[in-house]
Amino acid sequence: MSKILITSGPTRQYIDPVRFLSNASSGRMGAALAAAALEFGHEVTIVSGPVDISYPAEAQVVPVVTTEEMLRESMRLFSQCDGVIGVAAPCDYRPREVAKHKIAKNGEKLTLYFEETPDVLATLGASKTSRQWVVGFALETDDARLKALRKMIVKNCDMLVLNGPSAIDARDNEVEIFLKSGDSAGVFHGTKIELGREIFSLIQKHIIC
Amino acid sequence: MSKILITSGPTRQYIDPVRFLSNASSGRMGAALAAAALEFGHEVTIVSGPVDISYPAEAQVVPVVTTEEMLRESMRLFSQCDGVIGVAAPCDYRPREVAKHKIAKNGEKLTLYFEETPDVLATLGASKTSRQWVVGFALETDDARLKALRKMIVKNCDMLVLNGPSAIDARDNEVEIFLKSGDSAGVFHGTKIELGREIFSLIQKHIIC
Repeated sequence: MSKILITSGPTRQYIDPVRFLSNASSGRMGAALAAAALEFGHEVTIVSGPVDISYPAEAQVVPVVTTEEMLRESMRLFSQCDGVIGVAAPCDYRPREVAKHKIAKNGEKLTLYFEETPDVLATLGASKTSRQWVVGFALETDDARLKALRKMIVKNCDMLVLNGPSAIDARDNEVEIFLKSGDSAGVFHGTKIELGREIFSLIQKHIIC
Repeated sequence: MSKILITSGPTRQYIDPVRFLSNASSGRMGAALAAAALEFGHEVTIVSGPVDISYPAEAQVVPVVTTEEMLRESMRLFSQCDGVIGVAAPCDYRPREVAKHKIAKNGEKLTLYFEETPDVLATLGASKTSRQWVVGFALETDDARLKALRKMIVKNCDMLVLNGPSAIDARDNEVEIFLKSGDSAGVFHGTKIELGREIFSLIQKHIIC
């Protein structure tokens, strides 16, 4: 039995008290992976951004809003876990300043300055010990396979799952799974429930053993 | 029996194929107002941005994503309706350019240029005939009552409901309702279901009669 951390869902970076930058990640793939890991008898903790889906009742869920919160909670919990599956889609940019009041329309153009948020998966990858493992997800819209492999190396992952933008907020998905050797384990298509089982079986076979 | 249009939920303005600017509007207040209007025997059509809640089955729902789509569908439907309740929180800003590919992190700062989206409520207010009515919602974080009254005048509304940022994505809410005369009809507190009934009763009493 392993203790597995899953990051899931989007995060939000507010530009004022009302408006935020985010993405449509639903948390469904995270829920499916959690269900699969629980079926294999593992213990699961999920750090999740704001989602409307329900996670398996047997999983411990730690809710967060921003990327910074997701990083902080994930780092805290990862030290007690054997591995992490980073399926969350953390918001990559935050405004350099957050307006204290709701920005009022005045007929003028609005220029906003953003900086990159810390990379949750890369930070977990950099911190992992020799007995820990990291599985990453990448969502790319161009040069997808090349960028996915590069992410696996840069973020120190033991497996990387590549999906396209059609995956977001959808029930079905198609993914390609890369092993640590750089070899593709194949392209898989199905519901997120089916893919959760497929991906976790590969984690079990190639990483947890 | 009146034909009533309700705009509800947030809209999204994408900056690239994955990321968007939005807000946490849940559509709950729209659903509560729809339920109240249906209870009074009216016919209800809802133009809704992306939400996870369920609207009453008796209402016709037209789903949209962007503010431009919400405006187009609302204008099309409003011409066949007696009145509109604009409870949606349309995203007020859109990027001047939408990146074709996912913007890649490169360690640099990101500057984004936004312009205002068309104002859905103001456009509906400007188009209304003498036999039509418009009820608006305003969410303000500072100088709230003054800004709310100004919005009622500028957007040609027959009633305006003011709420604070704590209303967003919450089950409970506190609102102040302004009549066309500029008089306050009072401050009301309760669940969104209760407030939906309260607000719609005032619309029925003061506007539909």
